[in-house]
Amino acid sequence: MIFNDVKHVLIVGLGLLGGSYAKALKKKGIAVDAITLEQSSIDYALAHGIIDTGTTQINAEIVSRADLVVFALYPHIFVEWIRNHGHLLRPGQVVTDVTGVKESIVYEVQALLPEGVEYIAAHPMAGREVGGVENSDDSIFHGANYIVVPTEKNTTNAIWLCTELGYALGFADVSCLDPKKHDEMIGFLSQLTHCIAVSLMCTCDDPNMKRYTGDSFRDLTRIANINDEMWSELFLANQQTLLEQMEAYRCRFDRLYECIKEGDREGMREMMRLSTARRQLFDKKV
Amino acid sequence: MIFNDVKHVLIVGLGLLGGSYAKALKKKGIAVDAITLEQSSIDYALAHGIIDTGTTQINAEIVSRADLVVFALYPHIFVEWIRNHGHLLRPGQVVTDVTGVKESIVYEVQALLPEGVEYIAAHPMAGREVGGVENSDDSIFHGANYIVVPTEKNTTNAIWLCTELGYALGFADVSCLDPKKHDEMIGFLSQLTHCIAVSLMCTCDDPNMKRYTGDSFRDLTRIANINDEMWSELFLANQQTLLEQMEAYRCRFDRLYECIKEGDREGMREMMRLSTARRQLFDKKV
Repeated sequence: MIFNDVKHVLIVGLGLLGGSYAKALKKKGIAVDAITLEQSSIDYALAHGIIDTGTTQINAEIVSRADLVVFALYPHIFVEWIRNHGHLLRPGQVVTDVTGVKESIVYEVQALLPEGVEYIAAHPMAGREVGGVENSDDSIFHGANYIVVPTEKNTTNAIWLCTELGYALGFADVSCLDPKKHDEMIGFLSQLTHCIAVSLMCTCDDPNMKRYTGDSFRDLTRIANINDEMWSELFLANQQTLLEQMEAYRCRFDRLYECIKEGDREGMREMMRLSTARRQLFDKKV
Repeated sequence: MIFNDVKHVLIVGLGLLGGSYAKALKKKGIAVDAITLEQSSIDYALAHGIIDTGTTQINAEIVSRADLVVFALYPHIFVEWIRNHGHLLRPGQVVTDVTGVKESIVYEVQALLPEGVEYIAAHPMAGREVGGVENSDDSIFHGANYIVVPTEKNTTNAIWLCTELGYALGFADVSCLDPKKHDEMIGFLSQLTHCIAVSLMCTCDDPNMKRYTGDSFRDLTRIANINDEMWSELFLANQQTLLEQMEAYRCRFDRLYECIKEGDREGMREMMRLSTARRQLFDKKV
């Protein structure tokens, strides 16, 4: 199957990301079904033309008519779903996901799936500080990164299909990482940044500080407004890697602390020049 | 003098902030002169109608015709300027600044000024990652904070004039802090955030990481693109306070590290809920 053959997508978990996938795929003329926990999400999505059909009941018919099934669930719920309902999937279907950690789930899910059903993992690097299908918006994908995360079990066809899916959703760049490297990069680029923002926000309780704030603090702590249920699960699902990234960062932070303490201005400036050079490579393509 | 009496402003140091002040003040019908180091900055500002007159020569005439003098210089250059040329200021003039640290300069400058010249310190919490009058833009003040930093030497009149100046420049909120408290808040809200961004950017050298990055890392490291000359000076000018803020933050970061290491999900979630509640107070008024 190539992406052009995908006529019917089933989205399992109709929240912010599931709804944003649905919106982008409908624009490509693809029929979108959804299974989710709350009837209110289905009602909203039907009323706003985000999906074609939807249900809170997991049934064989809606599962089997999909060419591609996208799981947009918390990691442990995704694995449970596959364990309990994976038998409903039929050979030839491709399964993908949006899960933010990979090593701890990808191999398990691949092992649980029926023969002939291929799971190709993916991680869309986009989100918002608000959840729910009501806040879904496929423009969050524009200019953003999408990572395909294959294992040695995956076929070239599925990797290619998932790559085309990333571009079809509107992502600016699609890359490929194995699960271990993915979790390292995401431990550093996403989980560690959330750890920093949460720690910083917990440091000071001056009730007036917003009156003295500049953009740097606002930007840095935007993600301190965090879904504690989801992120605590993601942190523990990538525990060792995240701890290593936290240690590596703390080592640089301690080095800067020492420079300031010792009045080592050249040591400070050296770190600042390095950070400036690296950061300049980072500006977003839109 | 009240702000309405200010007909003539002299800006010393025509960079990003000096130029942005000039643009905002000209819109209020105030005549703006400038003294700066580079003739090219004067030429640019004259050609673009940012100032009325400008010179690279410090002379008594241009200094004495100002009602209000704004210093937009690095801290040590500001102090040197006052030491070397402060005698050109005349009684009745009000002096203010944009300097990012206060305790280490405010008392010294106040002591150096001639009798009858009042220095009222201020800190506009706005900037850009690019410098120079060519990049000046008074819209950076819109929605931003402005802090007036009086000492016991200041008159109520000057505090009031400086407050009105903040609003006239377009700032959304003007508040008042004494120098010690200002340096504490700025150590936390601005300097510490720059330390974090620099340290994070120095942690990983994967040349492809921008392909895997989401908005959180981009936002957090925006300020890792940093003027090393200015910021190393600001850090050392607020050394003890900044070190204390770094220690306080590091203590929270280590607490989160321990929670993750111990698998203490409730401990993590508690920090996340606190950070979320605090961050929600922070959204910018525009």
